[in-house]
Amino acid sequence: MKFTDHVYEKYKTDWRQNHQHPFIIEMGQGTLGVEKFRFYMVQDYLYLIDYAKLFALGAVKAQDLKTMGKFAALLDATMNEEMALHRKYAEQFGISETELEQAEPSPITLAYTHYMLHAAQNGPLSHLVAALLPCMWSYWDIGKELNLIPGAADHELYGEWIRMYSSEEFGALARWCMELMDELAEGVSEQEWARLEDIFLNTTRFEYMFWDMAYHQSMWPSNN
Amino acid sequence: MKFTDHVYEKYKTDWRQNHQHPFIIEMGQGTLGVEKFRFYMVQDYLYLIDYAKLFALGAVKAQDLKTMGKFAALLDATMNEEMALHRKYAEQFGISETELEQAEPSPITLAYTHYMLHAAQNGPLSHLVAALLPCMWSYWDIGKELNLIPGAADHELYGEWIRMYSSEEFGALARWCMELMDELAEGVSEQEWARLEDIFLNTTRFEYMFWDMAYHQSMWPSNN
Amino acid sequence: MKFTDHVYEKYKTDWRQNHQHPFIIEMGQGTLGVEKFRFYMVQDYLYLIDYAKLFALGAVKAQDLKTMGKFAALLDATMNEEMALHRKYAEQFGISETELEQAEPSPITLAYTHYMLHAAQNGPLSHLVAALLPCMWSYWDIGKELNLIPGAADHELYGEWIRMYSSEEFGALARWCMELMDELAEGVSEQEWARLEDIFLNTTRFEYMFWDMAYHQSMWPSNN
Amino acid sequence: MKFTDHVYEKYKTDWRQNHQHPFIIEMGQGTLGVEKFRFYMVQDYLYLIDYAKLFALGAVKAQDLKTMGKFAALLDATMNEEMALHRKYAEQFGISETELEQAEPSPITLAYTHYMLHAAQNGPLSHLVAALLPCMWSYWDIGKELNLIPGAADHELYGEWIRMYSSEEFGALARWCMELMDELAEGVSEQEWARLEDIFLNTTRFEYMFWDMAYHQSMWPSNN
Repeated sequence: MKFTDHVYEKYKTDWRQNHQHPFIIEMGQGTLGVEKFRFYMVQDYLYLIDYAKLFALGAVKAQDLKTMGKFAALLDATMNEEMALHRKYAEQFGISETELEQAEPSPITLAYTHYMLHAAQNGPLSHLVAALLPCMWSYWDIGKELNLIPGAADHELYGEWIRMYSSEEFGALARWCMELMDELAEGVSEQEWARLEDIFLNTTRFEYMFWDMAYHQSMWPSNN
Repeated sequence: MKFTDHVYEKYKTDWRQNHQHPFIIEMGQGTLGVEKFRFYMVQDYLYLIDYAKLFALGAVKAQDLKTMGKFAALLDATMNEEMALHRKYAEQFGISETELEQAEPSPITLAYTHYMLHAAQNGPLSHLVAALLPCMWSYWDIGKELNLIPGAADHELYGEWIRMYSSEEFGALARWCMELMDELAEGVSEQEWARLEDIFLNTTRFEYMFWDMAYHQSMWPSNN
Repeated sequence: MKFTDHVYEKYKTDWRQNHQHPFIIEMGQGTLGVEKFRFYMVQDYLYLIDYAKLFALGAVKAQDLKTMGKFAALLDATMNEEMALHRKYAEQFGISETELEQAEPSPITLAYTHYMLHAAQNGPLSHLVAALLPCMWSYWDIGKELNLIPGAADHELYGEWIRMYSSEEFGALARWCMELMDELAEGVSEQEWARLEDIFLNTTRFEYMFWDMAYHQSMWPSNN
Repeated sequence: MKFTDHVYEKYKTDWRQNHQHPFIIEMGQGTLGVEKFRFYMVQDYLYLIDYAKLFALGAVKAQDLKTMGKFAALLDATMNEEMALHRKYAEQFGISETELEQAEPSPITLAYTHYMLHAAQNGPLSHLVAALLPCMWSYWDIGKELNLIPGAADHELYGEWIRMYSSEEFGALARWCMELMDELAEGVSEQEWARLEDIFLNTTRFEYMFWDMAYHQSMWPSNN
């Protein structure tokens, strides 16, 4: 059985929780408080910078030129195109480039990105891809689901998010990542397969915590 | 001004919040719910394994034999002595070795350890030490403070914790770490000093989140 | 004094030895044995794959978006454009893509690339750039010098090499790398400056060994 | 078939070349020029510092506490005991601690250590152990072989080397490393097995180059 089929079955409950988070539900209904989305955008921007570093590490860990070239193209597209699109979208919410640059990561943003970065640096390519996958795959899955809601993709504020992640272009990227994962997981030992599941499950859960963090606009706690 | 003096002044509020967390207050008063401490012990055990990896990376990043040898000794002592003491202490709470081995890290444990591990792998030794320092220094500081409470160090359950971290041996370790930090921070550029502060502040705050996680016995959230 | 000015003065003898290696002299005169250049091309192709990984690690270690974007663009251009040019140039020498793919690195290729890769992974960005610099700067310097020899740039076999590395485009890249080095070295401690010199000197010397390896077509030694 | 049995058969020629290098032959006969051994000792001391870093990285990459504890103990023993023995042995050859500290690595020392360090940092534990193994195993194998030569182990200068590496203690270490390698290689994919062979073969060959470097006292080449 393919790794992606296996984990989709096994961790369906965790996976579906991301779809059912109030942040997602309300984004689909168009009722999400704009300040929650604003908070998300800023943290997502910081997240994306570290996510791009995973593409860079993918080029370092790749064992063939084709995979290396693909990660190189992804990194370049992210840094030199995607980031600008994110900045433009953020502008619509009154978030200036300066605000993005000076923003501080929330603890959950730090937690999620550093979990991925360490997995990527410390292990072989398969660990990196297992860390990378839930965000890509889950965004595509959520994007397609929200796109089925009449009018959601035309929403003034959130329509662009839904169009972006339900697009064929983004789907092609997610599928590439899934296929690479399946290839890398093929024939590994039982112990190694369990580690890949572990990384996949943890990043799936960090996805949930990221939505939750945005919904509650959570920064560092204090007892004051 | 020394780095440690500087951050102690600048981040006093964050620093003192660790001392004032209900987990600490109640441990000092001897009223802390035993199930909270039990939860802490298991997560602390998992934390310690990754913390020891920072010592290993310290030996890799060290630029002189003396520092390298010190990190080597610390790693060995942790793995081949300290861990056994932790297991023995845990036994008093009915936590078996098997339970420790099979325990799953909480999201905050993962967050904190992976933040440190990435900082340690990615940067020079100074980043590693800035990540390492708050746990050591703060445990010593809290240990000494709790030790001033009459009877606290003799408490049946929590006395051992207080005696361990207020001890002269542990203090010597914390001081070594502080002095190494001060040395490594000396003469760095303003931008680099700011990064060291950043790492120090983030791990200080993760300390707080760790106490908070233990107090609330928080594992992965869900919307059920 | 700028780092690049300083090391140029201090290590002039080592630097000039690269210019004076028979491989370079004979390439400029057009008398270099074609089998020596052929050997060089294959090893240079393997070298380039790992050199590109330094660009990827540059994106990981960069501390601002601009530098990160530049390394991302360089990595992409190398993998998705430059490599094809190298394959095309190699074809003129009867080196097929299959031969390139199946080629084994010589010990000196392994030595040089792994020295750089470890410096890049283990230290801050400044170590990475110090490792990266000699190849770029020295190729530009040698390219310009050979380009002064009448007819050299029009040589049927070696003219393309000389035109490529004496070009304004390549010069812009080398200057960017030099400026980044100077920026990163500014204000570092004396001990750290010494380490940067050390990395620069070692990779400068590995450049020499690389030419020497190609000239003698040296693979692994044996006592048979 | 076990990995170690497999590579011993497959790379017997490369393996035996180390035994047959003049440095080894003459050390066994007691005729090796003392200045060659002196050169070896200094470079071996520098080598050992980086070799110990592989033990540290082994503790980082290990996936169970037992292996992690073993690497920790090895690192500590190397740094806090072995290094002193090496310094003491070096003293017999008039090599002071200061000379050891100020010595510069030869290009082959840099090549060999950085090849191992990158393999260890970049890949899973199996890559690290494949890099670690040839030195340990080959020293034991050579030690035992030289120990069979009548009088060799009592030689005034080289006897200590032979006694050290033919000892039961050292053999136990080599066997541990071989068993760990066999475990880690078990059940890996064909592609991954090939990579492990590759690392093993390259470090076996770097062993040869190290003996050769010492025999010829080779530092950086120059065309003067």
